[in-house]
Amino acid sequence: MITASICTIGDEILIGQVVDTNSAMISRALGQLGVRVTRMLSIGDDHETIVRTLKEELSAQDIVITTGGLGPTKDDITKAALSALSGSRKLVEHAGQLAIIHRILHSRGLDVLDINRAQALVPDTCEVIENRRGTAPIMVFRLNGSAFPGCPSLYAMPGVPFETEAALPDVLEDIRRHHAFDAIRHRTLMTFGMAESALAKRIASWEDALPQSMHLAYLPNPLTGVRLRLSVYGGDASEAEKMLDQEVDKLHNLLGDSIYSFQDDTLEHAVGEALLRAGKSLSVAESCTGGEIAHLLTTVPGSSAYFLGSVTSYAVSVKEKVLGVPADVIAGKGVVSSEVAAAMAEGVRKLTGSDYALATTGWAGPGGGDPQNPEGTVWVAVTSPGRVRTEKYHFTNDRKRNIERFAASALFLLLNEIRA
Amino acid sequence: MITASICTIGDEILIGQVVDTNSAMISRALGQLGVRVTRMLSIGDDHETIVRTLKEELSAQDIVITTGGLGPTKDDITKAALSALSGSRKLVEHAGQLAIIHRILHSRGLDVLDINRAQALVPDTCEVIENRRGTAPIMVFRLNGSAFPGCPSLYAMPGVPFETEAALPDVLEDIRRHHAFDAIRHRTLMTFGMAESALAKRIASWEDALPQSMHLAYLPNPLTGVRLRLSVYGGDASEAEKMLDQEVDKLHNLLGDSIYSFQDDTLEHAVGEALLRAGKSLSVAESCTGGEIAHLLTTVPGSSAYFLGSVTSYAVSVKEKVLGVPADVIAGKGVVSSEVAAAMAEGVRKLTGSDYALATTGWAGPGGGDPQNPEGTVWVAVTSPGRVRTEKYHFTNDRKRNIERFAASALFLLLNEIRA
Repeated sequence: MITASICTIGDEILIGQVVDTNSAMISRALGQLGVRVTRMLSIGDDHETIVRTLKEELSAQDIVITTGGLGPTKDDITKAALSALSGSRKLVEHAGQLAIIHRILHSRGLDVLDINRAQALVPDTCEVIENRRGTAPIMVFRLNGSAFPGCPSLYAMPGVPFETEAALPDVLEDIRRHHAFDAIRHRTLMTFGMAESALAKRIASWEDALPQSMHLAYLPNPLTGVRLRLSVYGGDASEAEKMLDQEVDKLHNLLGDSIYSFQDDTLEHAVGEALLRAGKSLSVAESCTGGEIAHLLTTVPGSSAYFLGSVTSYAVSVKEKVLGVPADVIAGKGVVSSEVAAAMAEGVRKLTGSDYALATTGWAGPGGGDPQNPEGTVWVAVTSPGRVRTEKYHFTNDRKRNIERFAASALFLLLNEIRA
Repeated sequence: MITASICTIGDEILIGQVVDTNSAMISRALGQLGVRVTRMLSIGDDHETIVRTLKEELSAQDIVITTGGLGPTKDDITKAALSALSGSRKLVEHAGQLAIIHRILHSRGLDVLDINRAQALVPDTCEVIENRRGTAPIMVFRLNGSAFPGCPSLYAMPGVPFETEAALPDVLEDIRRHHAFDAIRHRTLMTFGMAESALAKRIASWEDALPQSMHLAYLPNPLTGVRLRLSVYGGDASEAEKMLDQEVDKLHNLLGDSIYSFQDDTLEHAVGEALLRAGKSLSVAESCTGGEIAHLLTTVPGSSAYFLGSVTSYAVSVKEKVLGVPADVIAGKGVVSSEVAAAMAEGVRKLTGSDYALATTGWAGPGGGDPQNPEGTVWVAVTSPGRVRTEKYHFTNDRKRNIERFAASALFLLLNEIRA
């Protein structure tokens, strides 16, 4: 089993100003390849710490991937530390990366300064993978000798996620060409509507009966539901796939419609697929969810094929003026009610001419609420010609999480209506 | 200087299915207190790995904070590892946490299963900080003896960010009561509109002249601009604050209006403050930004005081029908144009009756674009009675990042218009 550490370098992560998203992205990619990430670390922009930490990791792993510390400003010192680590005595200029640096800065209307040019210099002990989206090249060190008897590889990648992402396929290709490894295979099921512990209880005997080489992880997430990730380590490829198929079938029997997708997925993507398959269009009227549902739907590439648009009616006046919700309904039933949700949905449906409409009205908090609908309540409506479905949900979280749960519950209800 | 490691426990992080946001949150809080985080790690749900790794960290740090591995399902084993580490021989039931477990499950309409009840059991070697938002208690170990001569403390926190966040103040309070430490003081300035390297060049001589105890970090972020974080380590409190004031003044002279806030901030919050101060309201018409701007604005608590609502006119028909953009303008000038952006803004402003309106229309990609406006172009319009301002921006990123940059540029233009 090829093992790896991922090490992010940068004070900004240590002091908590930036959340590390690169490690997760790199790890997912390595996992597909069959490389097992056993450790992730974050360390600061300190030469001695970088050298010492990387030495430790390289003595324990086949592969170490670093991100960060390759920028042009004064707090970026990864390159010097890697020179020291690899026993390099001089820097050489990489012509290909220098050309990219010129191209990128030129396209942004910027001059090429000395500090930008210097990014094309690399230790003479490494190979280069060009960074097409940024100025810092990816450096590949194949270490050996008495200091590194295990002959580990180190890949130094940029810290800007947009650049790391683009360079990842080349790094994976390099790893593939230089290593042989066992497979880790995963199947991911997306569930919604059941709490983690209730899910665990329902599948407990199935889980206990799993073979040794298989492992189930529960990955709850407010926006996508509880992800179930089933993994099998090693073994023959088709054998492993057959085992996964069998166990997924059993899970399907146990969980039924709580499973909304048989791959790593999101509710907004599943909704999109369902609309495309049905050849239907959608509009959305939001209130307390503030545009979150429209935003989620439009992150799906190609969503313009079914999503016409949305109205976020934050003020009551906008519900009346734009969506045509009758003032007496708001006064009589309350702004958070089944009737107002349905009226909002019908309003945006007629306004845009869509087939389906989804609406939310609720109290995300802090504060708000009425006797029938305390803080944390949302009414969701899904309408289509001749049909109205409304449901009420209640959550006890903070504002941000209530909004996420409102949006997710709304999308799940919509998905079930489209698929019905 | 009190130092700390933050260690997240969980296979889901190692395989890249979940991004670790807890470490950043915890670190920010520790930094305010004056505790310096020098390492962050992520390890898997393996008993031996947890014990070994935590022993290493505890031998090198004053404080170790772990998150994760405390859930009720089969892959959560932190508690057993901590028992082994602390030499505990039995588990005891914490009555306060058990009561919370009952309350939470009851409010969700769930039964209290044995696996839920077991979460109230803790090693007899720890103290408990109650978890009010979840079922797993926070465990505090004050280690000593020959195994831990430095007398470090270990805090085992839940992995669910919503719960970690609520428990953090109590953990900080405990740390404060049990340690004495030097201060790290930060000032954060928010800038927008200048690339990181151009910023660095402009302030280069100022940065070179900084005293030894001060340090500047550049923290670029597509949604908020480049954050500049100036830190001073140790020293007398009022002396340090004076030093920070002086250097911030110098930066203000160098960077002028590129600085939009003198504290850690976001564009949407700065816009909200400006609208409140001016006593004005806002509506938004979005196209390619898909609801992102409305979503950002409504994440600011109290935004209902100034934000009336938005229309996301994803389809051209919705631009015409709902926003009243004349079909001949779209046909003549193109859907991505200064004229259409202005018409969209005026349309939503009249529809909602707001004082200000902001509109975006652009090509986020992939694909799209026309001869005058290639892929990655956005037109932004800000209108108010008798005034229209439009600007064009161009970015060369992928769809998701282009949308973020479109939204941020729009908010920055709006902010400057309100403050003008």
